[in-house]
Amino acid sequence: MTQTVDPNTDYRAVGRSTNRLDGLEKVTGRTRYAGDITAYGMLHVRLVLSPYAHARIVSIDTAAAEAIPGVVAVFTAKTLEMAGAGTSSRSQSPLALDEACWCGHPVAVVVAESEAAAEDGAAAVEVDYDPLPVVVDPEAALLPDAPLARSRSEDEVSEIAGGGAHAAVSDEGAEEEEEEEPLSQNVSDKAHIKKGDIEVGLREADVVVERTYRTHPVHQSYLEPQSITVVPGPSGLQVWASAQGLYETRSSIAKAINLPERQIHVESVPIGGAFGGKFGLLEPLAGAVAYKLRRPVRLVYTRQEDLLAGNPAPQAVFKLKLGAKRDGTLVALQAKVIFDAGVFPGAAASFGGMILANTYNCPNVDIRAYEVLTNKVSTGAYRAPNAPQSTFALESTVDALCNELGVDKLEFRRKNALREGDMSGFRQRLPRIGLVECIERIQQHPLWQQREQQKTVVPDELKGWKVGIGVAVGGWPGGTESAAAACRLEKDGTFTVVLGTVDLTGSDTSMALIAAEGLGLSVASVNVAHDGTDTMPYSGGTGGSKTIYSMGPAVLKAAQDARRQVLEIAADMLEAAVDDLEIEDGKVVVRGVPSKNVSLEQIANSSMNFGAPYAPVYGNGRSAIANASPMYTAHLVKVAVDPETGKVRVLDYVAAQDVGYAINPAEVEGQMCGGITQGLGWALFEGMEYDENGQLLTPTLMDYALPHSQDVPNITPLLVEVPSGRGPFGAKGVGEPPVVPVAAAVANAIYDAVGARLEQIPMTPERVFTAMQAE
Amino acid sequence: MTQTVDPNTDYRAVGRSTNRLDGLEKVTGRTRYAGDITAYGMLHVRLVLSPYAHARIVSIDTAAAEAIPGVVAVFTAKTLEMAGAGTSSRSQSPLALDEACWCGHPVAVVVAESEAAAEDGAAAVEVDYDPLPVVVDPEAALLPDAPLARSRSEDEVSEIAGGGAHAAVSDEGAEEEEEEEPLSQNVSDKAHIKKGDIEVGLREADVVVERTYRTHPVHQSYLEPQSITVVPGPSGLQVWASAQGLYETRSSIAKAINLPERQIHVESVPIGGAFGGKFGLLEPLAGAVAYKLRRPVRLVYTRQEDLLAGNPAPQAVFKLKLGAKRDGTLVALQAKVIFDAGVFPGAAASFGGMILANTYNCPNVDIRAYEVLTNKVSTGAYRAPNAPQSTFALESTVDALCNELGVDKLEFRRKNALREGDMSGFRQRLPRIGLVECIERIQQHPLWQQREQQKTVVPDELKGWKVGIGVAVGGWPGGTESAAAACRLEKDGTFTVVLGTVDLTGSDTSMALIAAEGLGLSVASVNVAHDGTDTMPYSGGTGGSKTIYSMGPAVLKAAQDARRQVLEIAADMLEAAVDDLEIEDGKVVVRGVPSKNVSLEQIANSSMNFGAPYAPVYGNGRSAIANASPMYTAHLVKVAVDPETGKVRVLDYVAAQDVGYAINPAEVEGQMCGGITQGLGWALFEGMEYDENGQLLTPTLMDYALPHSQDVPNITPLLVEVPSGRGPFGAKGVGEPPVVPVAAAVANAIYDAVGARLEQIPMTPERVFTAMQAE
Repeated sequence: MTQTVDPNTDYRAVGRSTNRLDGLEKVTGRTRYAGDITAYGMLHVRLVLSPYAHARIVSIDTAAAEAIPGVVAVFTAKTLEMAGAGTSSRSQSPLALDEACWCGHPVAVVVAESEAAAEDGAAAVEVDYDPLPVVVDPEAALLPDAPLARSRSEDEVSEIAGGGAHAAVSDEGAEEEEEEEPLSQNVSDKAHIKKGDIEVGLREADVVVERTYRTHPVHQSYLEPQSITVVPGPSGLQVWASAQGLYETRSSIAKAINLPERQIHVESVPIGGAFGGKFGLLEPLAGAVAYKLRRPVRLVYTRQEDLLAGNPAPQAVFKLKLGAKRDGTLVALQAKVIFDAGVFPGAAASFGGMILANTYNCPNVDIRAYEVLTNKVSTGAYRAPNAPQSTFALESTVDALCNELGVDKLEFRRKNALREGDMSGFRQRLPRIGLVECIERIQQHPLWQQREQQKTVVPDELKGWKVGIGVAVGGWPGGTESAAAACRLEKDGTFTVVLGTVDLTGSDTSMALIAAEGLGLSVASVNVAHDGTDTMPYSGGTGGSKTIYSMGPAVLKAAQDARRQVLEIAADMLEAAVDDLEIEDGKVVVRGVPSKNVSLEQIANSSMNFGAPYAPVYGNGRSAIANASPMYTAHLVKVAVDPETGKVRVLDYVAAQDVGYAINPAEVEGQMCGGITQGLGWALFEGMEYDENGQLLTPTLMDYALPHSQDVPNITPLLVEVPSGRGPFGAKGVGEPPVVPVAAAVANAIYDAVGARLEQIPMTPERVFTAMQAE
Repeated sequence: MTQTVDPNTDYRAVGRSTNRLDGLEKVTGRTRYAGDITAYGMLHVRLVLSPYAHARIVSIDTAAAEAIPGVVAVFTAKTLEMAGAGTSSRSQSPLALDEACWCGHPVAVVVAESEAAAEDGAAAVEVDYDPLPVVVDPEAALLPDAPLARSRSEDEVSEIAGGGAHAAVSDEGAEEEEEEEPLSQNVSDKAHIKKGDIEVGLREADVVVERTYRTHPVHQSYLEPQSITVVPGPSGLQVWASAQGLYETRSSIAKAINLPERQIHVESVPIGGAFGGKFGLLEPLAGAVAYKLRRPVRLVYTRQEDLLAGNPAPQAVFKLKLGAKRDGTLVALQAKVIFDAGVFPGAAASFGGMILANTYNCPNVDIRAYEVLTNKVSTGAYRAPNAPQSTFALESTVDALCNELGVDKLEFRRKNALREGDMSGFRQRLPRIGLVECIERIQQHPLWQQREQQKTVVPDELKGWKVGIGVAVGGWPGGTESAAAACRLEKDGTFTVVLGTVDLTGSDTSMALIAAEGLGLSVASVNVAHDGTDTMPYSGGTGGSKTIYSMGPAVLKAAQDARRQVLEIAADMLEAAVDDLEIEDGKVVVRGVPSKNVSLEQIANSSMNFGAPYAPVYGNGRSAIANASPMYTAHLVKVAVDPETGKVRVLDYVAAQDVGYAINPAEVEGQMCGGITQGLGWALFEGMEYDENGQLLTPTLMDYALPHSQDVPNITPLLVEVPSGRGPFGAKGVGEPPVVPVAAAVANAIYDAVGARLEQIPMTPERVFTAMQAE
């Protein structure tokens, strides 16, 4: 079927399921995170959050707070004097200047000797607010007469495109002049993605389906809250942050306090989940406070602060029209897409629009994407940013279209699926991708093959519930980033890979496997060590499903370089040719002459000692991959719906995903199961709910519903390996795709069960019940 | 005269006197040392030192100490359970087990929440001692019936050679059976260095001079006392130590507590002077305490502890006989050398013996060297270990021999000096050395040329004092160590050199100059960053005058590698050939076409960013130099002696030193002036004095006399540049030689002034006066 990499290659390390290097420390609670760092004289920071979604700040009285024993300082935007105060950068301008713009907007910080004093201090800060009109709904915010979510200078408004004409990007890449639209200045970005002629496409279509979908903001819900500890030293600030990128953290703090980047020393520290939500939030604020006071400070969000003042995934609205011919050929894709950025721009609406055009071939495409500001917390990345929302809309509509056409849902998808050589939604000429292979893998699965019979199998306690099976597909374009790594021989004959990447979801373990393979050793001989920004080999943030793909080649080269150096030393010691040598069981051996050998330990001691005759083994690897390897996945889900309450139970889940090559199969399966579980959160449970005044109704985990273990069904991850030409051993990214099609697959299964089309996630019992009543 | 490197080369960076990178932080007091590291919950360690030079420990009662508020624990060797307890390794067995063997031997440690509580606790530990016979004098300790300085197992005694026959090493390298000598088991090592036939040599000599010399232990007197902070973490211990080598520290702690080396994380931290005295002392002890308690601990010596329980330079005794022909040809060198190791072996007596044969060609050599144990603190390295002592003996005797022969003292030295191709005292066939060049440089100096006239020039306040001029030469064999380094481009277009070496006396600044030269940039574009043991490129301890010599080539290669990478990227960006490019003013420019250029910042941003097309610039350098480059120096000093008191004032000092090539001339001159100042301490002031019970009479800086600023004359450093074939740009080591001949030069000047030959250092007024009376 597919040209997968044969798992029976002669690889020694990669391709074998391997325990995580950090597993023991994490499960035994010994791992220390950014918020566990302590320093002598450390102060604690607590935020004062606005209770209003929009209000002018008349005055802030800090006297009572400052009088509390233990309180060292209270800062407002005016007294903290950050370089970026008042700009439209959330992290550079973390404190409200004159205007609080969401319920949860920090207006002051209290710094105290203890957490308790800081909390008391925060409660004692008196802020006089003058409420302003609030806009919460993104569709309402788009209208020309909508209240403005945030006052802005004229410069900023013209810069962020509100209401003005914007160039559209056509399929040919040419820019065209666009007609003016009457829009609110809340619109902070817009894009028009065009291909072919949408009017022609819609005319050609035998069937056209049009639907509108809505989503809520969804929080990344990492286990570790946003955390940072900053310790001022003689040459700047030392920083431990729960952040996905060390260099990014360095840059953002340096910028905030106008110091050279070299004076910001960001240390590597394990992070407790991120999912895109830790690409910069509190670091400039904490850095500025520590710098101002010249004392160590720690800022760890409470769970409530994380929900009120984090950076969740954006809410979105899709009006989507698909047209197809009777034979199942997709001919028209028209969409209006709104992504709600909250108070600050950055929701990447155009990216969400492109995702709509990144699964199927369609000759006529017309997508208008809008980013709009509202009085809600501003947003950040969350695992495959914008793809779960867009894919919920697209794949629900495809399902409806297939129903209208009466065609097989997987056949329709297979027929229209993007393939190698096609143009992607991101205008990339596609390399070999595995979308068709994933669809075919699902097609062959018994849950699909015997789907009518499978629907009759339900647990006893669900008797009377309606059962349905749904499918959906989705993908992620991937990314690239240049990277470097080092590989060092240790005195005990093992090797250390030196990295600047933050370990997420086992990336270190995969790096160790890659290095072991490059060295020709088992993974037990390889350790991974992290460097901070002062000395680390360059690597970008961990995220975007690009870590193994982009960083892996640098690690592989570093390991191969170290191996070459080892063999050169051994060749000299053994008076043999490098080509006649092999590494076995911690020794370099002359092939065929096992008695002629030298241990790696001996090589280490001959190259790392006073008077050592050989140079130390210190391999170096650098890489820059030109193009991303897009990834796809196909999901199949069986659900049961309680017709009396609308409650949904997911009974079985099968996911086929093209991972290129599974470096650490257990970890890849873990990523798939984790992503699907988060997708079930999007589908059924999670959503930040605001009232019409912009008050967050779900500011705690009592109100914000995360999936519980009993909500997660048996998940069958099927690894499809269509090798990438560039990733190490053919590997592609694996982290983002599994979350992408889950909501759509579940919605389609619900439709299959009860004939009701859900157009809003999360699909709570109330919404499902209402939808059933409407049918 | 000499083939020096022309200072008017086209070098851009090296060869220019450059301010130290760490200067501002150090002079403004902002530098943080190992003892400044703080950690939450940190405990303080204070030692309980034996008041007896030798005593059986009957019992240690810690109850009273433990009852003091704030005292957390009291450990003895038995309760601390270090892996090396009871062995003959001072640092692995830091606490006396059953027997205290010197006045100052730590018998217990008190760990407390505060420094004050630890001190109170230490005072409250009750130790019941049973005094044992004491041996203090090394000559007495050698005798067969001497009391043993330390009880030892039979294994240990046979291992350390006490009294047994030892093989001698002859000139031809062959080992011969030696006759037995009646010696005490205090003798822990001995060596017999032979060449030619000493009896023949002595018979051939027209003049034979025989003298006996004695020295005292001398303390390194670094500004920063021995200090260490250890913080236990989830994966072992994090360590900041005032230590010259990070890897050495890692190994010693790992060994002491039986942990894999990987679990010891030694961080780079500036040190405040070391001079050889910080190659490992407290680290295993502090590591064991922190590991036992699983709490951060800090141990910072008081100055008194440093004097009582440091590791000073060993006391030595020389019986030296030199024979020469009337024409000034040296024909016989016979010596008996005793180095007093204190309680633990490690004084490298044989090395001290070889130093005697490392200045002049002599056909007949017979040197017997003995290392002996006494009830004194054990010794460590101190700037050119053993060479000041041996050179004081050798060069004083040469001076006497010249007087007997009536030959010119510099002519005699020039005539007999070792030259390229000769066999050194360390049996190295000498590469090009600069001993003759240094002698000739001194010969030409006005202070020598017009020495009789110069002797009449004295300050008014010294009227009536006798003035003399003395010369002495000396050297250091040098060392090598394999090394690696990295060089990284920064986003601002500057470069960072990544090192694992500890900066001593400006070595970082020299590394920056070397890297700048390799990059083709000015030193302002280069920063130096230090890595810890987890991730650093391998490098050994800083010391032995091998840092620039051995590490410099790795830095140069790393910089050249980074430059190559920069040019390759620029070539692609500019569509030009690498060979047509040059780096100028932060830009890569096509030669002859200044408008065709790309800035280093642009190159950084094209190679270190999301989607960057080029791999990050990350250069790598490795080196292993096969042979050391021996260094020599010639000193000329003018002194005045008060005939009524014996007080000596040094009036002028000239030193010519072969430095190969001065990477940073100001720093090289600084090294010379610093070494000479320390040498004046050896010559005139410093010496640890013990009474017959082994009580240290100089345990504070009130008693132990360091040279004051007014004791240091004008010093004229003359750089002689006889390039090394291996060091970077021809550089040789520079740190050790300047201390070597000082005591001899001063002694010879005193003889010239008053006709009295001083045979013991320091040459205190009392000793000078006594010697004058004896003439």
